[in-house]
Amino acid sequence: MAEEEKVQAEEKDLIEILEPSSGPIDLARYVDYVRDPAAGAIATFEGTTRDTFEGKRVVELRYEAYVPMAARRLAAVCAEARAAWPVLRVAVAHRLGTVGVGEASVFVAASAVHRAEAMEACRYVIDEVKASVPIWKKEVYENGEVWKENREFLERREAAVGPVPERKKAACCCGSKVRVDEAATDGKISAV
Amino acid sequence: MAEEEKVQAEEKDLIEILEPSSGPIDLARYVDYVRDPAAGAIATFEGTTRDTFEGKRVVELRYEAYVPMAARRLAAVCAEARAAWPVLRVAVAHRLGTVGVGEASVFVAASAVHRAEAMEACRYVIDEVKASVPIWKKEVYENGEVWKENREFLERREAAVGPVPERKKAACCCGSKVRVDEAATDGKISAV
Repeated sequence: MAEEEKVQAEEKDLIEILEPSSGPIDLARYVDYVRDPAAGAIATFEGTTRDTFEGKRVVELRYEAYVPMAARRLAAVCAEARAAWPVLRVAVAHRLGTVGVGEASVFVAASAVHRAEAMEACRYVIDEVKASVPIWKKEVYENGEVWKENREFLERREAAVGPVPERKKAACCCGSKVRVDEAATDGKISAV
Repeated sequence: MAEEEKVQAEEKDLIEILEPSSGPIDLARYVDYVRDPAAGAIATFEGTTRDTFEGKRVVELRYEAYVPMAARRLAAVCAEARAAWPVLRVAVAHRLGTVGVGEASVFVAASAVHRAEAMEACRYVIDEVKASVPIWKKEVYENGEVWKENREFLERREAAVGPVPERKKAACCCGSKVRVDEAATDGKISAV
């Protein structure tokens, strides 16, 4: 685990950002982590590399992160879920590096006494991972590659700091990515 | 698999009602079944035996089903999910017999191109399993045992056939269970 960024923000949350050398996500590890004798429900979500995007054949995805801030933001997301729903345990894993077609890049597991709570907390966490955690995705096609941001991430940033100029917005999807200036924004996200 | 009721209603749905001798649900079997190169998302739900119910210590749960009708209703539920969301694959497993604390009694997995579709279809299937599939649960406490029906199942039946008389309603939670007269109702559920 030396190469992994592991954060245990609350006693019952497990957050792991997995370095490229870690290989496939061990799904059972996170399901077993959230298993609890008091739980009646475990909900999970697995984000997988799909073979096509907008009609283009995807070969693989590659993920990069600003790891310290991504880990802190993931811990905050889990804390938000815990504040909103009476979840028992939450686990989140996100791979960095190359993720082949059919493989998992991200995995969320949440347990609760009742099923609605587990499912809603799980959904909140994955939605926030896409919208607010600084992890970037490069789509590698048969004939090229593109850095991508999730639409939600762009929308969230625009809501926070105003519209991204068209030139910069275009750049986000064509080779560059938005950097996050952590120190200057006190956790807020800004386009640079 | 000789003792299991296996239904493959659509090419891409896997439905298994597992006899008591089958042991724990092999979660990976169902996750792997819904894995698809075209999928960007896999959502799962696992219903587990929790150690307390309304303040009483639960030792184990026991499940019984009218298997042919339960399998057919599960197939219909998957078809309904498929009609409502563009899911790629759905798998459902439900154990019969004794399920110890912490173990899974039911498992649902659904894959789709996008995450919202996978999560919503998964939620629909488990909600319908609880509300409309004729599988009964006995809660075994330290000092007794009770046949239970899910509240949703009772509500759905009352909506279909009118209120259950108080005497019969009480009986549902105190040793007897509602039988389903399949032939007489053409798939509809009735109290007998």
